[in-house]
Amino acid sequence: MKHLLGIENLNRDQIMHILETAVSFEEINQRQIKKVPTLKGLSVINFFAEPSTRTRMSFEVAEKRLSADSYNIAVSGSAITKGETLSDTALNLQAMAPDCLIIRHAVSGTPHMLAQIMDCSIINAGDGFHEHPTQALLDAYTIQKKKGKLDGLKVALMGDIAHSRVARSNIHLLTKTGSHVTVAGPATMIPKDIKKLGVEVTYDPKEAVKDADIVMMLRIQEERESGLMYPDRREYAKFFCLDEKLLSYAKPDATVMHPGPANRGVEIDDNIMDGDRSVILEQVANGVAVRMAVLYLLLGGSNS
Amino acid sequence: MKHLLGIENLNRDQIMHILETAVSFEEINQRQIKKVPTLKGLSVINFFAEPSTRTRMSFEVAEKRLSADSYNIAVSGSAITKGETLSDTALNLQAMAPDCLIIRHAVSGTPHMLAQIMDCSIINAGDGFHEHPTQALLDAYTIQKKKGKLDGLKVALMGDIAHSRVARSNIHLLTKTGSHVTVAGPATMIPKDIKKLGVEVTYDPKEAVKDADIVMMLRIQEERESGLMYPDRREYAKFFCLDEKLLSYAKPDATVMHPGPANRGVEIDDNIMDGDRSVILEQVANGVAVRMAVLYLLLGGSNS
Amino acid sequence: MKHLLGIENLNRDQIMHILETAVSFEEINQRQIKKVPTLKGLSVINFFAEPSTRTRMSFEVAEKRLSADSYNIAVSGSAITKGETLSDTALNLQAMAPDCLIIRHAVSGTPHMLAQIMDCSIINAGDGFHEHPTQALLDAYTIQKKKGKLDGLKVALMGDIAHSRVARSNIHLLTKTGSHVTVAGPATMIPKDIKKLGVEVTYDPKEAVKDADIVMMLRIQEERESGLMYPDRREYAKFFCLDEKLLSYAKPDATVMHPGPANRGVEIDDNIMDGDRSVILEQVANGVAVRMAVLYLLLGGSNS
Repeated sequence: MKHLLGIENLNRDQIMHILETAVSFEEINQRQIKKVPTLKGLSVINFFAEPSTRTRMSFEVAEKRLSADSYNIAVSGSAITKGETLSDTALNLQAMAPDCLIIRHAVSGTPHMLAQIMDCSIINAGDGFHEHPTQALLDAYTIQKKKGKLDGLKVALMGDIAHSRVARSNIHLLTKTGSHVTVAGPATMIPKDIKKLGVEVTYDPKEAVKDADIVMMLRIQEERESGLMYPDRREYAKFFCLDEKLLSYAKPDATVMHPGPANRGVEIDDNIMDGDRSVILEQVANGVAVRMAVLYLLLGGSNS
Repeated sequence: MKHLLGIENLNRDQIMHILETAVSFEEINQRQIKKVPTLKGLSVINFFAEPSTRTRMSFEVAEKRLSADSYNIAVSGSAITKGETLSDTALNLQAMAPDCLIIRHAVSGTPHMLAQIMDCSIINAGDGFHEHPTQALLDAYTIQKKKGKLDGLKVALMGDIAHSRVARSNIHLLTKTGSHVTVAGPATMIPKDIKKLGVEVTYDPKEAVKDADIVMMLRIQEERESGLMYPDRREYAKFFCLDEKLLSYAKPDATVMHPGPANRGVEIDDNIMDGDRSVILEQVANGVAVRMAVLYLLLGGSNS
Repeated sequence: MKHLLGIENLNRDQIMHILETAVSFEEINQRQIKKVPTLKGLSVINFFAEPSTRTRMSFEVAEKRLSADSYNIAVSGSAITKGETLSDTALNLQAMAPDCLIIRHAVSGTPHMLAQIMDCSIINAGDGFHEHPTQALLDAYTIQKKKGKLDGLKVALMGDIAHSRVARSNIHLLTKTGSHVTVAGPATMIPKDIKKLGVEVTYDPKEAVKDADIVMMLRIQEERESGLMYPDRREYAKFFCLDEKLLSYAKPDATVMHPGPANRGVEIDDNIMDGDRSVILEQVANGVAVRMAVLYLLLGGSNS
């Protein structure tokens, strides 16, 4: 495995191998000194062409804990503003011989394009409405820690499915590992052909949550087009906000997840977000371990 | 001591201990190779939600000279722009297990709030009009080097006292260590209750400077509200700009200080700023040593 | 040699010494682990007051491969926005005792001014329309690798000569090392006194390219004033875009260069840019080695 472009093109064994590898990195993250020399001398570029704190920081923490050299490129300071094409920018970065490029970009398929023209490893940190594979992997890692397994679970995935790369990557992963996914949201937010990915569809949040082991809420992303899809946030919240009442339809030991950043009171109620069934911050913590595992497997696997 | 939130809650012994610790770090900063492995493998996040070159750089230099891993978050690229609350951003950063968060924020009390919800050490790098403790510590370090003591000195503190966190932290520190502080400025820039902090108040700059050992000028901060407090910069300068004539009222060996960045010709005259009584650049140099001491005491004290 | 401010003040031996030193760094860049401890513990500040991806990244890669500590300052987050003068900002940075400051600035002569007031080494990473010495050095390195020599070559330099610091540095370098430079461009883009630098001038691109060993295209920089100099991009491209036809006037083994970022279809045609006579990406790769050499000679020469 040279790149991590998406979950769609991974098989179950590859997914499980990444998750197993992450266990030892979670252990490193619990030490007082959370740093190992594994990737010393290697260069990793974080190229975020969309704003991000959490994901960029999580990758940078993973890189530095593995002793790699980190480089940050944000779009505002980049050559893109000088009219250069993205592929020319990429070839120029390639000429500096990095070992890995982590890319977030508003255009779906950008990481795949870069993987074709660059020699280094490419990690997709979110491309358009397409995939966000490390998010799905850290979600799966979190589910497995909580439930002890990834198969036979009932997962409710709620929100703007159409515009969510997180949804798409999670659907690929959870169906590959044998869980049952039900997606729910306003009809305008559910793509017509989503059933082809092996999920059940409902427009009724109660039906989606019913007997769920996992309730995974998606962010209502005003910065994307999804704002056009429903009258207003209050209207959305009235039907789809995860509160005590809606969650009461799930299994008593149901786990609540959210990729963040969350809009409190829109897609998730304060009580639930801060409650004891929420693993939202565990997701973030596990994200560092999972990204360390991915970097290790792509860049350091042969050495060690 | 786990956090450095302000000077107000420190006692004299704690202040003197930080200043004594800084001495050995000043020595390191004079070596050819200014780097020690003290904090190797620890993670420090510089979270600056207000623009800063000097303070952010000073902290980053301190961190890297102690071999810590530095992370920079500027507000424009942060999740805050996606509508997440600051406390949620903080909890997310906490989940990545940093050892220290350095925070600058326009809202007073932000560092204290973060100290309550995060596990890592918090250092206040300036919160609203409240405190900027490392600035007061580096000022005290500079005074002590110059005058050999921190008690019994007459200090004039001039400018927009109402909107200055630097003033507030310096007043706390200098009164705790036994110096006599006189604040001066236009009446609109002096808070009514400032006398409660143990300072003398005057609206006459000559009276403040008279027989002073230390003349500390504050920045007129157009980016804050203080612009509303006086007719214009020229009017302000006419009365309060520190020039040869005004400084002639101070002791002959008086020391001139400014936290920077300075507005030349507004609060301080070129001749004075660049003259031999000014220690403005020594303040900056000492800032690195003092911040190394603070980081060492908060993060590394137990190991060494 | 303490600073690298421009090519104009270097002699041929100094230039050749930098290029020879770069050879061993190119070799390091071809290893699996591209990192050496040469500058461990030294601090290098990248102060880019104009947007840049390529050059800033190239310097940062060079610094980290030499194990220096890198600091990045972009103008938007800097004290300049608070009304501080550049020389005050510089003196403040100096007080933190960096070993080197790399400066890009829109005002010609800025690096020279900084060299006069700061103690650390200054590297000019592009000042106004004046010089960009590391670009000329990496171009020369690339030419030498390709042609085996720097003297007796016929070089065509085409585009907006008046507003190009790349042109100016290359003209200085190539005339010092004994090559023959012809500059070409619209009459509005050729400064009247350019012949004094020892180049030939033509307004006919074919004449410039005729029998050239090297065809070096310049970027049409819309972000500068050059947009005012010709009717529109299409008009410019019609006469000066390097395509198969224009390049056919050069020697059959002519080498095509561009400092990037390129405007495809404006100053250079896709076929040529991506063709086998283009060394544009080699230029970028060589840039890292050349910058490592410069940093080594300025900062580490005495130690090793």
